[in-house]
Amino acid sequence: MTDQSNLRIQPLTAADYLIASKQAEIQNLDYFLQMGQLVVMVSDLVHALQKERGASNIFIASKGQHFQQSLIDLSQNTDHHIQLFQTMLTQIHTQISTQAGNSRLLNRTANVLHGLAGLATLRQHIHQLKMTTQPTTQRYSDIISGLLAIVFETADAAVDPTIARILIAMFNLMHGKELAGQERALGAAGFAAGSFTAVQIERLQYLIDAQERCFELFLEFSNAATLQLWQQHTAHTYLIDIERLRRMILTQRRTETDSSEDWFDLVTQRIDDLKTIETAIEVQLQQCCQQTLQDAQESLKQQKILVHHLQHDDSSGGFTALLNPDKTHPMHLDHFHPDRLSPQLGRSVFELVQHQAQRLQQMQDELDTARQAIEERKLQQKAKALLIKHRHMSEDEAHRLLRQMAMDQGKKIAEVAKNLIDMADIWR
Amino acid sequence: MTDQSNLRIQPLTAADYLIASKQAEIQNLDYFLQMGQLVVMVSDLVHALQKERGASNIFIASKGQHFQQSLIDLSQNTDHHIQLFQTMLTQIHTQISTQAGNSRLLNRTANVLHGLAGLATLRQHIHQLKMTTQPTTQRYSDIISGLLAIVFETADAAVDPTIARILIAMFNLMHGKELAGQERALGAAGFAAGSFTAVQIERLQYLIDAQERCFELFLEFSNAATLQLWQQHTAHTYLIDIERLRRMILTQRRTETDSSEDWFDLVTQRIDDLKTIETAIEVQLQQCCQQTLQDAQESLKQQKILVHHLQHDDSSGGFTALLNPDKTHPMHLDHFHPDRLSPQLGRSVFELVQHQAQRLQQMQDELDTARQAIEERKLQQKAKALLIKHRHMSEDEAHRLLRQMAMDQGKKIAEVAKNLIDMADIWR
Repeated sequence: MTDQSNLRIQPLTAADYLIASKQAEIQNLDYFLQMGQLVVMVSDLVHALQKERGASNIFIASKGQHFQQSLIDLSQNTDHHIQLFQTMLTQIHTQISTQAGNSRLLNRTANVLHGLAGLATLRQHIHQLKMTTQPTTQRYSDIISGLLAIVFETADAAVDPTIARILIAMFNLMHGKELAGQERALGAAGFAAGSFTAVQIERLQYLIDAQERCFELFLEFSNAATLQLWQQHTAHTYLIDIERLRRMILTQRRTETDSSEDWFDLVTQRIDDLKTIETAIEVQLQQCCQQTLQDAQESLKQQKILVHHLQHDDSSGGFTALLNPDKTHPMHLDHFHPDRLSPQLGRSVFELVQHQAQRLQQMQDELDTARQAIEERKLQQKAKALLIKHRHMSEDEAHRLLRQMAMDQGKKIAEVAKNLIDMADIWR
Repeated sequence: MTDQSNLRIQPLTAADYLIASKQAEIQNLDYFLQMGQLVVMVSDLVHALQKERGASNIFIASKGQHFQQSLIDLSQNTDHHIQLFQTMLTQIHTQISTQAGNSRLLNRTANVLHGLAGLATLRQHIHQLKMTTQPTTQRYSDIISGLLAIVFETADAAVDPTIARILIAMFNLMHGKELAGQERALGAAGFAAGSFTAVQIERLQYLIDAQERCFELFLEFSNAATLQLWQQHTAHTYLIDIERLRRMILTQRRTETDSSEDWFDLVTQRIDDLKTIETAIEVQLQQCCQQTLQDAQESLKQQKILVHHLQHDDSSGGFTALLNPDKTHPMHLDHFHPDRLSPQLGRSVFELVQHQAQRLQQMQDELDTARQAIEERKLQQKAKALLIKHRHMSEDEAHRLLRQMAMDQGKKIAEVAKNLIDMADIWR
């Protein structure tokens, strides 16, 4: 029944669909194995862009005095990772583009490739000191934000709850690390310029708060191994120096230009540490995908053997006895009745179908729980977008308003965001 | 850039992914066009099974006195629709089984095919009067419930908000009609037996209430044309006769065996009417899929022309001027620079990508709104399942409890269901 040539001629049976259901699972796991590799490339590329952005800020703020050579090296490093990213994209193009629900992921990719295509011109303008720090940061951040969106879409599409959890943890870690990267660029620019504007100080406060929220979510979705890595990270003493410099900025103490490279090195150390954790999670993701895929393939193999035995041996002793088919059920090919299902087969296929249904339902339940974090983030983003568009707020202001409302009303930010969206038609 | 042979050799550009995003949309719409045809087959098969179930109940309750010939005719009619359903399944097997997220849909299909495979034996037992009405109804209802689950999974997977709305309307109409079918079977059995048990009366009340909720949801997701059909349906005077017979049962007035066929004919008329509306929605679904598909194909064509022009004519007058390319922009193949994006092209591709992103976001927002009904149904089903499993309630009892709690707390049933699920770990 599972033979390919049969599929087109005879009507398909319950057993065929049971196997097709398992195969669809395997196909999905295989897709996430590929996407896991893309996420690795994205993570590396983001890291390279973050470094280049930080160095560009120092270069501009120091009027070309600092980091001229670093910038060239870092650009080359970025280009190397762009190439790896694009090669990976080309490799998995068929996989990505044949999944009918992937319009958004594909468009996000278009967005990133467009940003990357403009990088050469941007660098030229930076080199000629035609750019100021703020728009430079913005341009790099936009590309990175597009890359993070690819990871978010991937997490959003995950069906296996364990894979979904790892991807959600991954996205939040990457997002937190990116906010740390923006903090590095902002600090680097301010220290190099010798002072911080009120807007910069406000932005720094936002970046610190937002990082904390990301890392909280990250920890919520992390396993024991990751938590241990995180504990090691938070024990580093250089974090004390970062906190000291943060305090200098936030309390508007006079800053010294010399602190610029100190700041850059310290935050870079932190970001590199975060990257190490990211890499560890990437390995987890790959291992998880491979293990789940292997289990599913093994389960499919078992199921095929079971169905085969059931179809060939009417006198079999029931489904449970069949779990070790090799020992109890030699094949009786002479008993083959392709068109007639014995009551025995009927009952046993039913048990397998029920078992698969229960397993899929359990996966869905676990997934629903994991996805709550994704849904809450979507609500927050949507509420912020509404405030930015219709109340002309900055992202920081929008976020502060949501947080204030949540505190005042004793609700979760996501709840406040939902109410705000629901009421948008009224107060808009 | 969009040439297939290029896709594998050169790194893909933003324009390629823009087009791939559109193509993924088209692929998805094409899939739903196919699924729409499967839904038609499901709808017809459900209708046939409902008729056969009703007639079987009268046949059993009348101890084989009534409907012997009808039953044979109706079985043949069902078999005809099983064949059409299976042929359709075989036709779209590749489409269904290559979408990686379809494990559940495929397993649901396995479940239905298993149920259908047991139909021959069931009919034999009915013919030999070896079955009572309650388990007979149950067996048919299980198959129908599996078929409805296929429609539900299809609605659940819809990405286009308009298609999602039609499928949600469709599912709720089908579900309401199925509850009417169960009401027909229950009434037919009771009238034929000459009396109704307390359990049957309680069940009837539940079936009437549940139908109303289904039709409310159905109307919420219906368009003007469907609403008009519904108004015509509710103006039929035979509904008065049905209400009269319902009242007879619920007030436990002595019933006459003669009412059995009256009841059967009246409710059959109602169900056939509902089927007419169902067919009208099926046509809407097909038209909507075809129209959306055609629009998307047209939009893809336009986009390809735009990208082509942008790549071939550096001196073009901007994105807006390109909207009517035939008039303003003859092709300049001699200007072809495949590897260099002009700033013009860069900006215009960016605008197209942004436009596609906004469109996809808007679709997602509309879809989120439509999907709320699906999510609420899932919550209700899950809460009921928990009550049935851990509190050993019947479905009716579970539903009544939820409804009572919602009334007492002044909340929506879905909210109460969510709280109940969230608290399950505590009170379980």
